[in-house]
Amino acid sequence: MEPIFNRVVIVGAGLLGASLGLALQKQGAAQAVIGVGRRQSSLDTALARGAIQEGSLDLATAANDADLIVIATPASTVRPTLDQIQARCSEKTIVIDVASTKADICAHAARQWAAPRRFIGCHPMAGSEKSGPEHATANLYEGSVCLIEDTPDLDPAALSQVHALWKRVGARVVPVEPELHDALLARTSHVPHIMASVLALSAAQKGATSDVVGNGFRDMTRVAAGSPEMWRDIVLTNREAISEGLNDIKQHLDAFLDALAAGDDVALTALFEGGKKARQKVLS
Amino acid sequence: MEPIFNRVVIVGAGLLGASLGLALQKQGAAQAVIGVGRRQSSLDTALARGAIQEGSLDLATAANDADLIVIATPASTVRPTLDQIQARCSEKTIVIDVASTKADICAHAARQWAAPRRFIGCHPMAGSEKSGPEHATANLYEGSVCLIEDTPDLDPAALSQVHALWKRVGARVVPVEPELHDALLARTSHVPHIMASVLALSAAQKGATSDVVGNGFRDMTRVAAGSPEMWRDIVLTNREAISEGLNDIKQHLDAFLDALAAGDDVALTALFEGGKKARQKVLS
Repeated sequence: MEPIFNRVVIVGAGLLGASLGLALQKQGAAQAVIGVGRRQSSLDTALARGAIQEGSLDLATAANDADLIVIATPASTVRPTLDQIQARCSEKTIVIDVASTKADICAHAARQWAAPRRFIGCHPMAGSEKSGPEHATANLYEGSVCLIEDTPDLDPAALSQVHALWKRVGARVVPVEPELHDALLARTSHVPHIMASVLALSAAQKGATSDVVGNGFRDMTRVAAGSPEMWRDIVLTNREAISEGLNDIKQHLDAFLDALAAGDDVALTALFEGGKKARQKVLS
Repeated sequence: MEPIFNRVVIVGAGLLGASLGLALQKQGAAQAVIGVGRRQSSLDTALARGAIQEGSLDLATAANDADLIVIATPASTVRPTLDQIQARCSEKTIVIDVASTKADICAHAARQWAAPRRFIGCHPMAGSEKSGPEHATANLYEGSVCLIEDTPDLDPAALSQVHALWKRVGARVVPVEPELHDALLARTSHVPHIMASVLALSAAQKGATSDVVGNGFRDMTRVAAGSPEMWRDIVLTNREAISEGLNDIKQHLDAFLDALAAGDDVALTALFEGGKKARQKVLS
């Protein structure tokens, strides 16, 4: 298959960055994949796994002559990384990120970059509670959805290349306006993640052990095993939508509490029925 | 292998009852397995699957001469079923249930049955969001935990036979005092189930679709696909512990809301770290 990019620089050799490096090489999508990190140890792991062909601790130098720069750092450091590389970008350079929140990052890029903009915010919905290049796999993105910034000021040629990139690694591309992205992801990812932590806290507080735990609890709390620092960064870049979501959750809980206090079997059936139908609607 | 029981009567031909019928026969644990149900159609399905050898709509008659009666009806109907069969029980009859809550049912049995009691409350932690005899499997209980009533007034011989029964179908038996059982299960099962419904409701309300949903959301809301009527019955028999659990959840959510409002990165990291450690502690 034809390469889409000549020189790809991946900033951040974590699970997402290193997996993208593996996938781009496996799919022949890049001539060269260079990894940039802050710690030599992560770069060495990524090199050993074949996720990158070269490693560098020097972002500014590595960014020179890049066709594509992928910012795969934690959500809170995407903005400073963008600021750092902007001066190094040539007219041909395309820049993307892979963070789980988009409004803050895309708004920042829109202020810094003249239209037609060649930074395009991306959110590949892949990954797991594992992190680090040691868990990277070439098929991480296969069968996943990549949400991609849908704003009018993007460069159409860059956009089409970024579409091609995600398709090549097996993802289905779905364009979403950044504010809407964050509002929706607050409900489908960020608030659920907080709930997983809260459920685990509440169970441990009461002294629950593995003897009284079924698959439901395991599944519902799995994401709580993820990196606390990564999740702190994600929620800090989507505070308003998440707070709205959590308050919404509290209202729904109050409806259950009221029905329980009243022993109202009709209301309880309706609430569970509503939850079942809501899940069907979301997943259909 | 030696049979443990001669004549086993299973009341309720749902997923748990029919699966136990299949497992008892596969493991040679019962000479005869008779199913009792309210609807002929469920009995016919259970018969067609080989889960029971005979079906009956007449509980009182079927209960005669039973060595073991398994009440596998919804949680709210265990008590009336117990009342109905008590007069039919001989000195040799052992009775168990398989409901997800225990305090209410065991307290009722303790009032009705003289010590040493031959009704023993059981809660096999098996099953899924599927229900009905059509989903029954002989290995449903393999590798699962069966929580079993731990109270002083039980008949030791009956207890030992019930232990043998669950072991034979592949479950690990864990004795728990009924009030403690319900307090713990509120945190590891009932509250999480309500949360799954609430997460689905909150996501649907905002218009989320499958495009913005990852595996985390799917896993966390899976149990919300279960039977609303079954879950209404479960939560109605454990109202106090569940209400306490939901209020506890609201307090934890407030801690997240406060940290988000303040943009407090240290507090957020500590909260996620606490959730991660809590999960490890519960599952260890």
